[in-house]
Amino acid sequence: MSRVAYTDADRQGREYAMRLMRDAGLKVEIDAAGNIAGMLDGSDPSLKPLLIGSHIDSVPQGGNYDGDVGSLSAIEVAQILHESGMRLRHPLQVLIFQNEEGGTIGSHILGAGFDDKLLNMMSQSGKTIREGIQLIGGDLSKLAQAQRPPGSIAGYFELHIEQGAILEQEKINIGVVEGIVGILHSEVAIEGFANHAGTTPMNQRHDALLSAARLIEKVNQVVTSVPGRQVGTVGWIRVEPGAYNVIPGRTVLGLELRDLDEKKINEMFDRIRAEATQIGALNGTRFSFTEPTMTHPALTDKNFQKLIDNSAKQLGFSTKLMPSGAGHDAQEIARIGPVGMIFIPSIGGISHAPKEFSRPEDIENGANVLLHTVLEFDKTY
Amino acid sequence: MSRVAYTDADRQGREYAMRLMRDAGLKVEIDAAGNIAGMLDGSDPSLKPLLIGSHIDSVPQGGNYDGDVGSLSAIEVAQILHESGMRLRHPLQVLIFQNEEGGTIGSHILGAGFDDKLLNMMSQSGKTIREGIQLIGGDLSKLAQAQRPPGSIAGYFELHIEQGAILEQEKINIGVVEGIVGILHSEVAIEGFANHAGTTPMNQRHDALLSAARLIEKVNQVVTSVPGRQVGTVGWIRVEPGAYNVIPGRTVLGLELRDLDEKKINEMFDRIRAEATQIGALNGTRFSFTEPTMTHPALTDKNFQKLIDNSAKQLGFSTKLMPSGAGHDAQEIARIGPVGMIFIPSIGGISHAPKEFSRPEDIENGANVLLHTVLEFDKTY
Repeated sequence: MSRVAYTDADRQGREYAMRLMRDAGLKVEIDAAGNIAGMLDGSDPSLKPLLIGSHIDSVPQGGNYDGDVGSLSAIEVAQILHESGMRLRHPLQVLIFQNEEGGTIGSHILGAGFDDKLLNMMSQSGKTIREGIQLIGGDLSKLAQAQRPPGSIAGYFELHIEQGAILEQEKINIGVVEGIVGILHSEVAIEGFANHAGTTPMNQRHDALLSAARLIEKVNQVVTSVPGRQVGTVGWIRVEPGAYNVIPGRTVLGLELRDLDEKKINEMFDRIRAEATQIGALNGTRFSFTEPTMTHPALTDKNFQKLIDNSAKQLGFSTKLMPSGAGHDAQEIARIGPVGMIFIPSIGGISHAPKEFSRPEDIENGANVLLHTVLEFDKTY
Repeated sequence: MSRVAYTDADRQGREYAMRLMRDAGLKVEIDAAGNIAGMLDGSDPSLKPLLIGSHIDSVPQGGNYDGDVGSLSAIEVAQILHESGMRLRHPLQVLIFQNEEGGTIGSHILGAGFDDKLLNMMSQSGKTIREGIQLIGGDLSKLAQAQRPPGSIAGYFELHIEQGAILEQEKINIGVVEGIVGILHSEVAIEGFANHAGTTPMNQRHDALLSAARLIEKVNQVVTSVPGRQVGTVGWIRVEPGAYNVIPGRTVLGLELRDLDEKKINEMFDRIRAEATQIGALNGTRFSFTEPTMTHPALTDKNFQKLIDNSAKQLGFSTKLMPSGAGHDAQEIARIGPVGMIFIPSIGGISHAPKEFSRPEDIENGANVLLHTVLEFDKTY
């Protein structure tokens, strides 16, 4: 359940995957960033490569489906092509990106490059990214070569578990991903005045936690007040000084907003800030929001959406167009070429936990949709 | 500003106070619990002693008024009696109780006794109460003798700073304390379900922090919905797992309620628990409250209130009957005899902080009220 990038379990998983890839007839290489690439020649050497894949690392105490379903299905697709003697026109590359869970590191270097800040970042293994890349067979001296220029690929398809419960609840076989949501983070500080909880009357308090509570309610109201699939979360909070008998003088909390539409994210953020000003005026507390960090939304290719949808329907599956609320390697690869994503149901929507589960028949469905999408793509492009 | 009990600063303060007491003509003893007692004989040996005093220890980075105003004024009262040759009928005892800020320790042992749990408690000095008592000249082998039986004193008067801003705001000279409020503490746990903040739609969340926020708002509403001077505070909160991108699965917070009327405290607690049940039903979270701990209210003696009020008015001061929202040594001494308390204004209501301040003229007023109350008491009882 735990295959944290750059740990022994991760390395054993990578060895296992590379063995499967070789058995599937792929020529296996580790690029300078430590991503595993398995190559299958195409019949037309003038065509750019088509990429399929995902990742096999996990969060600590994660599950066995997030990343693995897409990685092993991509190998399976290659193996079927190889064993059946079908030859694609496009060169096919099965990519297993390293350290997705630590911030889509391998696919980021492939799509966007790297800098010292990234390499010096501490990963959950206790090793820096730099140390991790060395450990898994990357080549720091040639790291710049791992980056692929925009336009250098024909496209990328990634099969993944939904990690939410929508497909299961709506009894839909296949999710056609519209895009990967953008994510705004801002740290919100509320300054009140710490005072004796026994001697300060209720109407003379500047309670920073009471103001925080009102903001948390407003975040929920703002996000749910308009139609759509946007989400907003306050996931952490800290109170100072933090004792039964002291009115909170300062509260800090983490605000997250996600949507496919960056404009909508910014509008929600503006509305929340306006609400904060009003809340602060109620009891003489002062809100400040850090400059928000934005992970921009990454949209999938409209034609790829249609390819996936058609392939799924031809196989007799029900489909639903939906955003991906979670981040994926595909969002990094979208920098250099068109991408498509296929979701299959996650039972109970549970993910990043040992209870993460997808039914074997759903995995088989997803792998078949991936295979047929690749075949359709190869015919059309 | 920092005279935490059992530290060097505390010991130096105690030495200084004992020197003042001796200079004031008092016979100084340290009882087995480490409380300082300064004795002045009365003219009628059949009468029980009258106690006046307070404490001189402080919280870390506290102020120079909390406790000190009452302790030094009590010494001043004794000195005036001694120097002017006025002799009271009652024996007078100036008491400086040890470690008030750590939980009214010295006055508790004097009024209620002790047990091993109390002695083994770690104090803010890093020493246990047991070690502290030894350090300041108490006698652990005779500790039981420090407890005084109910009915063994004629009464106790304590002058103290208000630690709130009511007297200052209402421009009143002297607060006549009705009693020391009771305090209820309960730890509230909210169980939700931790899930991915990106993939879990708003209407499928069991967000334990959102429920906590709603409870914090309701605590404020319940406490302010009825007339009176009751207060309610949520002073600390913890969220698990506590990350931007995870919906809070569990939240724990500390609820405190204070009022002079224990029944009112319990009624507020019941209403808050009922609100919690409704909040939990809204998003499928579950509230649980620990069995509340109750520090019972300690009422002052009605006749003592009148004595203080009359003395103040005769001196030309305005007065206000008011509760004490903070705990005091007087609440412990109330177990063994009638008590009265005199408040003077705290500028800005600031206390337990270096900016704690009371004007010299207000301190003088308070000391004069204490003196005249003692004289009136001695005439009447």
